[in-house]
Amino acid sequence: MQLLKDRIRKDGKIKEGNVLKVDSFLNHQMDVKLFHEIGLEFQRRFENEGINKILTIEASGIGIACLVAEVFDVPVVFAKKTQTKNIAGDVYTTQVESYTHGRIYDIIVSKEYLGEGDKVLVIDDFLANGKALEGLIQLVKDSGAELVGAGIVIEKGFQVGGEIIRNQGVHLESLAIVESMDEKTGEIVFR
Amino acid sequence: MQLLKDRIRKDGKIKEGNVLKVDSFLNHQMDVKLFHEIGLEFQRRFENEGINKILTIEASGIGIACLVAEVFDVPVVFAKKTQTKNIAGDVYTTQVESYTHGRIYDIIVSKEYLGEGDKVLVIDDFLANGKALEGLIQLVKDSGAELVGAGIVIEKGFQVGGEIIRNQGVHLESLAIVESMDEKTGEIVFR
Repeated sequence: MQLLKDRIRKDGKIKEGNVLKVDSFLNHQMDVKLFHEIGLEFQRRFENEGINKILTIEASGIGIACLVAEVFDVPVVFAKKTQTKNIAGDVYTTQVESYTHGRIYDIIVSKEYLGEGDKVLVIDDFLANGKALEGLIQLVKDSGAELVGAGIVIEKGFQVGGEIIRNQGVHLESLAIVESMDEKTGEIVFR
Repeated sequence: MQLLKDRIRKDGKIKEGNVLKVDSFLNHQMDVKLFHEIGLEFQRRFENEGINKILTIEASGIGIACLVAEVFDVPVVFAKKTQTKNIAGDVYTTQVESYTHGRIYDIIVSKEYLGEGDKVLVIDDFLANGKALEGLIQLVKDSGAELVGAGIVIEKGFQVGGEIIRNQGVHLESLAIVESMDEKTGEIVFR
């Protein structure tokens, strides 16, 4: 998606430890017009699949997922990272290891909102080692819903997540795949 | 907002401890069509105010804020609840006490995305004791931005938050104010 790649080149900042900082438009400040364009692009890539639900994970996936869901005209469900008082006991749950936060956490989805008959598109902002996406796919499987595919805004192509997920036969679409980036020159190479 | 009140009466569930469970359409599964209508309603209530930024807090505020922002044609910034590797040190921060989670946490916004010249509408899903909203208002003040007002989807009118915030002179608009609710009969009285 050229609009997105141009935006990453213009506003993305490369930080130590292969961090690509895009929080001016993607995951802290959010450009909802761009998110709408992202929705249209995912619609082109997952046409005629009968998707009736978008699944994402808190927090930074939610905004994108909502604008994508508006284009698809379906509801969003977001997996929660900790069990709160307001969710009843009947949930699907799996564990995810977070690279960014350096810890393992549970993710949960209420059984009421994911299950047989659902045709699910998983949406997230980033794909790196793939742990969050693997967790979301596991929840879809556990629920008996059908996984149509996964739509990622930015994939770090130099990390293993994309390969692992594609090798599982999942229809994975990443709108920008970063092949390499150079902290010193600021150069970003897309696949 | 009648559409919202009808939906709360239809799909809301009253749980022990004055919990109003609306996670079938508001804060776990999300009805983005309803969120768009919520955006239109806030636009009517905050007309001609020159709002150029929506501020919310992760996680359940984000989806609503994004659909509201689309109507206003402005970006969203969401306050984060913990400091992650991906945010540089230059942030506004304040502390919030969470009733739902029973703990105190820091909320932060990067100084890059909130500041002088911004005319800010704060958006959140719930207002109960007002701690989260007070924290967001504090961040706006600290940044030098102008607080235009706060838009809440559901206010628990029997808790103190609404009164505290209105007594500060803040233009607070809640689309549904629950005056009382009865766990046994399922009855909800709106103000």
